[in-house]
Amino acid sequence: LTKNNNIPKVSIVMGSASDMPVVEKTIKILKDFGVETDVMICSAHRTPDIAADFAKKARENGIDVIIAAAGKAAHLPGVLAAFTTLPVIGIPVKSSFMDGLDSLLSIVQMPAGVPVATVAVNGAENAAILAVQIMSLKYEGLAEEMSKYKKVMKENVIKSNELIK
Amino acid sequence: LTKNNNIPKVSIVMGSASDMPVVEKTIKILKDFGVETDVMICSAHRTPDIAADFAKKARENGIDVIIAAAGKAAHLPGVLAAFTTLPVIGIPVKSSFMDGLDSLLSIVQMPAGVPVATVAVNGAENAAILAVQIMSLKYEGLAEEMSKYKKVMKENVIKSNELIK
Amino acid sequence: LTKNNNIPKVSIVMGSASDMPVVEKTIKILKDFGVETDVMICSAHRTPDIAADFAKKARENGIDVIIAAAGKAAHLPGVLAAFTTLPVIGIPVKSSFMDGLDSLLSIVQMPAGVPVATVAVNGAENAAILAVQIMSLKYEGLAEEMSKYKKVMKENVIKSNELIK
Amino acid sequence: LTKNNNIPKVSIVMGSASDMPVVEKTIKILKDFGVETDVMICSAHRTPDIAADFAKKARENGIDVIIAAAGKAAHLPGVLAAFTTLPVIGIPVKSSFMDGLDSLLSIVQMPAGVPVATVAVNGAENAAILAVQIMSLKYEGLAEEMSKYKKVMKENVIKSNELIK
Amino acid sequence: LTKNNNIPKVSIVMGSASDMPVVEKTIKILKDFGVETDVMICSAHRTPDIAADFAKKARENGIDVIIAAAGKAAHLPGVLAAFTTLPVIGIPVKSSFMDGLDSLLSIVQMPAGVPVATVAVNGAENAAILAVQIMSLKYEGLAEEMSKYKKVMKENVIKSNELIK
Amino acid sequence: LTKNNNIPKVSIVMGSASDMPVVEKTIKILKDFGVETDVMICSAHRTPDIAADFAKKARENGIDVIIAAAGKAAHLPGVLAAFTTLPVIGIPVKSSFMDGLDSLLSIVQMPAGVPVATVAVNGAENAAILAVQIMSLKYEGLAEEMSKYKKVMKENVIKSNELIK
Amino acid sequence: LTKNNNIPKVSIVMGSASDMPVVEKTIKILKDFGVETDVMICSAHRTPDIAADFAKKARENGIDVIIAAAGKAAHLPGVLAAFTTLPVIGIPVKSSFMDGLDSLLSIVQMPAGVPVATVAVNGAENAAILAVQIMSLKYEGLAEEMSKYKKVMKENVIKSNELIK
Amino acid sequence: LTKNNNIPKVSIVMGSASDMPVVEKTIKILKDFGVETDVMICSAHRTPDIAADFAKKARENGIDVIIAAAGKAAHLPGVLAAFTTLPVIGIPVKSSFMDGLDSLLSIVQMPAGVPVATVAVNGAENAAILAVQIMSLKYEGLAEEMSKYKKVMKENVIKSNELIK
Repeated sequence: LTKNNNIPKVSIVMGSASDMPVVEKTIKILKDFGVETDVMICSAHRTPDIAADFAKKARENGIDVIIAAAGKAAHLPGVLAAFTTLPVIGIPVKSSFMDGLDSLLSIVQMPAGVPVATVAVNGAENAAILAVQIMSLKYEGLAEEMSKYKKVMKENVIKSNELIK
Repeated sequence: LTKNNNIPKVSIVMGSASDMPVVEKTIKILKDFGVETDVMICSAHRTPDIAADFAKKARENGIDVIIAAAGKAAHLPGVLAAFTTLPVIGIPVKSSFMDGLDSLLSIVQMPAGVPVATVAVNGAENAAILAVQIMSLKYEGLAEEMSKYKKVMKENVIKSNELIK
Repeated sequence: LTKNNNIPKVSIVMGSASDMPVVEKTIKILKDFGVETDVMICSAHRTPDIAADFAKKARENGIDVIIAAAGKAAHLPGVLAAFTTLPVIGIPVKSSFMDGLDSLLSIVQMPAGVPVATVAVNGAENAAILAVQIMSLKYEGLAEEMSKYKKVMKENVIKSNELIK
Repeated sequence: LTKNNNIPKVSIVMGSASDMPVVEKTIKILKDFGVETDVMICSAHRTPDIAADFAKKARENGIDVIIAAAGKAAHLPGVLAAFTTLPVIGIPVKSSFMDGLDSLLSIVQMPAGVPVATVAVNGAENAAILAVQIMSLKYEGLAEEMSKYKKVMKENVIKSNELIK
Repeated sequence: LTKNNNIPKVSIVMGSASDMPVVEKTIKILKDFGVETDVMICSAHRTPDIAADFAKKARENGIDVIIAAAGKAAHLPGVLAAFTTLPVIGIPVKSSFMDGLDSLLSIVQMPAGVPVATVAVNGAENAAILAVQIMSLKYEGLAEEMSKYKKVMKENVIKSNELIK
Repeated sequence: LTKNNNIPKVSIVMGSASDMPVVEKTIKILKDFGVETDVMICSAHRTPDIAADFAKKARENGIDVIIAAAGKAAHLPGVLAAFTTLPVIGIPVKSSFMDGLDSLLSIVQMPAGVPVATVAVNGAENAAILAVQIMSLKYEGLAEEMSKYKKVMKENVIKSNELIK
Repeated sequence: LTKNNNIPKVSIVMGSASDMPVVEKTIKILKDFGVETDVMICSAHRTPDIAADFAKKARENGIDVIIAAAGKAAHLPGVLAAFTTLPVIGIPVKSSFMDGLDSLLSIVQMPAGVPVATVAVNGAENAAILAVQIMSLKYEGLAEEMSKYKKVMKENVIKSNELIK
Repeated sequence: LTKNNNIPKVSIVMGSASDMPVVEKTIKILKDFGVETDVMICSAHRTPDIAADFAKKARENGIDVIIAAAGKAAHLPGVLAAFTTLPVIGIPVKSSFMDGLDSLLSIVQMPAGVPVATVAVNGAENAAILAVQIMSLKYEGLAEEMSKYKKVMKENVIKSNELIK
């Protein structure tokens, strides 16, 4: 990541390489908004020290928002949130058990004191959009960009409505 | 809410007056962090125009984050998110059906394009803390305050550990 | 839709074009009963103003029943119901999470005051039949037609019973 | 029930006397709208012939809508729907098993051909409101009354909002 | 079915022809035990009168046990049980919603007074075996046959154990 | 239990003394039907040899049906079924986890070969009624008694219906 | 904890002081078996460094088994397991959401590589017994003690059986 | 299994041959750690006496840990645990009903007194690793081996992280 403080920066952390197809949609949207992204594989259980170290230094490293994707007993977003004061967005990755109910509950049901901003199961796009909305408090252009994004979404709905008529 | 742009501002919206006991914990923590709060009862289904109008103007009214608490088929956070580019935090209020599984899924499973940052069922404290973490991108003092908050939490755990020994 | 007040009219609204395969069965049955249908893509979150506007004018536009199909955090039927006094039938569209448990609960668990008449997950045929049953209060021929439909269903069961013997 | 065809009529059927506290809210709202109501205890399993007989004659007896409340393996609404072409509204009564998940699924998951218009678990008020919306197709005054009802709901939200300020 | 009272007789009823693949396993095992079987398609909702009529006459027609397979809001076993004093075995057929949770709860959660002997979701073999165990009270040979069946099962486990060694 | 082969006999087994309040309703109904009952506490995990021994000898001891009540990981009914060719009825006892979902699935989802006739969670009455229906194949009077029982149930519904009118 | 290597040692860690009533049953049973116990409050999210430090040194500190109790998004057992090669037993503490389904799934669904030996929700006694069974591999007397414990359980069942006769 | 007391020994029991693909991963990891393994097909319901006999003699036969894999109403691990004082690890095998929720609850929710150390649904690797961790109390080399295993896991995460950069 660059040292340029005027560019919004998001670190995307995933529990294993198998989460990459989910996370790719997040990266694409963030890049579309001109957000610098850093992608990292890091496990709450296999590399816990690396995870802790990363999260402790995230703010001073200029990161604005952390997005963490994990499945099953998905501790990664919560463990990162334990070590930082930055907002952490959690993507529950669909597991083979009840379509990710385990991932969802392991991420959203965080005890009082250490929240994770949870999006839908496999909600990769929404993690990116939420990160942009959060960063729009600091980076003025992003609010404007997000308004345009919403307009495009609206127009796409209108177009697909016209198509079926 | 004041017009002072240097004070963080959060609007807390709830679906009905019965959600007040949940939301009070959110307000208390926000006030402890020096955040200005505005509380509002507003229904996605009974006063949809008021809800839309509030959300459309939230950013220009100086609000930084919207927190919405709702139960059952909890559409309020998502409906507000439809009309704003601000981050919207959703608190699934525990309903009498499966302890709020309906509230949780109605809030967290938002379709691509319009995210709601979901916290735990009745996770009122975490909604406040997440809002502070989000606003810490813009208001410099808040990161420091949040660090202190985390230290106090840590000390409380240590104390309660000493107590049981 | 025609201006002819003697023809039953149903508007079918879906959250996205991907719901079309579900909704097609609804349209087919309605047409079989001689019901005029209007199909529309419209999102509670991406085109909320269009959704509100449509629902507000539905009754004066001669529509008798609204059928809305949506998945995941399926707010569309409830949001339409907020803006009309017409009966709204909701079809929970099967999502990739627990076979549409999120869609079902988001639609059926509406809070007191704004009901949605919910049918089974992907219950496209039943949405049409329910609409016809509702409209049979106003359009006299429909009760008769529905009786015939039930008779055909009965005969089909009897035939398939004979086939396996 | 009177023979007067100009008065809307709803039959409310419940599986057992223990469902009365749920159903009372339905009756009250219907009466507020000037709807004639008939209340009946009738079991799909203990008095199946009476249930069948009632449903077969419901339309010719001048009934407009049937509301059926039942719990556990809640077959009553579906069994009534099997014998009539009138719209049947089902209220899943909260059972002691998973807050009525059994009641909800037994009612809403009706197979193709015989729909039940399902409202929320214990959604007694919404069953009444939905019945009025359905009957508003036939009885002109009801649409107007429902508009007023919605206005009152809106005003109540606004008032409770003012109260907390 | 023959009039011979010395031959055990089971009627197998299914909600639709699509349940046949499930039910075939039931028939096969019953035949292996020398049980006379009668197979029938009959719907609780589309042919309710036929279902009632069948169940009312089942005992006098010499049937010993009724096995009913149904899916979704699976009312068939319970509706048959309402009209007979014979034991009714219910097979919850796997539906496309949560692997038949709807079918299971609709069958097993019968209210007090009218039981259905429920086996596992798609538990076609066990329905047959349970029927044989029930009929072994009346037909002396069946207990002996069932003992042999259990011995064969045991030997098959022992053989497959030897195979993997 | 007496040696009289002309009297129907049911053994009721429960996993622990805390299941007694559930099982008492079963005993009462069986006695009303003139069934001899034997009650026993016996654990699949704490006294597995006693359980096995009891089940192995049940048939030669003149027992017609075994009813087993158990909660949580409720193995008792299945373990008894493993050692007998008699029909075994399982009552899932409501546990403190999800209202007995664990008990229900542990009993009903038996693998192919060893069925348990499962009734509703805490379905104590239905276990008794099902046992009587099963024994009605062997003891002629019971069919008649069950018909009367059904008539009384019907009359009770009719009476309670008259009461609310 | 003493330095005596001949005494079995278990560390019991809980996420918050509110878990004490659950954990007390664990301590009592361990003491009955002569196991030295150490109790500690320690949070995966509020004192993550203390948790990591404790787990890293557990083996060299002479601990044989770690028992960790936690609720909601219960990361504590898994986080401890990440830092030790000792067996970690997890007790899912009943939360207010679906009776601890969140706690259970967050503990049992650990990804490959870092297991947690999970017992029942609030299964405090079983955590102790499992720890003793594990330690019986190393401490010879414990196998004998466990045999006696099983005998006492058996006798208690037999006694309670005699009591109800 | 050899008579050599210095070699760790694990018996792996599965309910049916169809569980072999799951269990193979367990065997592989155990062998990598130099653990002697014995594999056996044995059913709690079809060969209950063999299961009991095996478990009763497991300790005297030199076995250190029993791993049992079973699906649906998965009684096998609990039934084995009833007859031994050795630690029993249970692998809930994914069934076709709700991805093994039945298997999981039937294994983990064991009543007080007879624990089963439960791992994730299909958690074959973790069953092996947990067994090694348990045996590391007795066999000194295993702790060291497990440390190395953890290091390799860590390095693999680091490598896959480098790969995506």
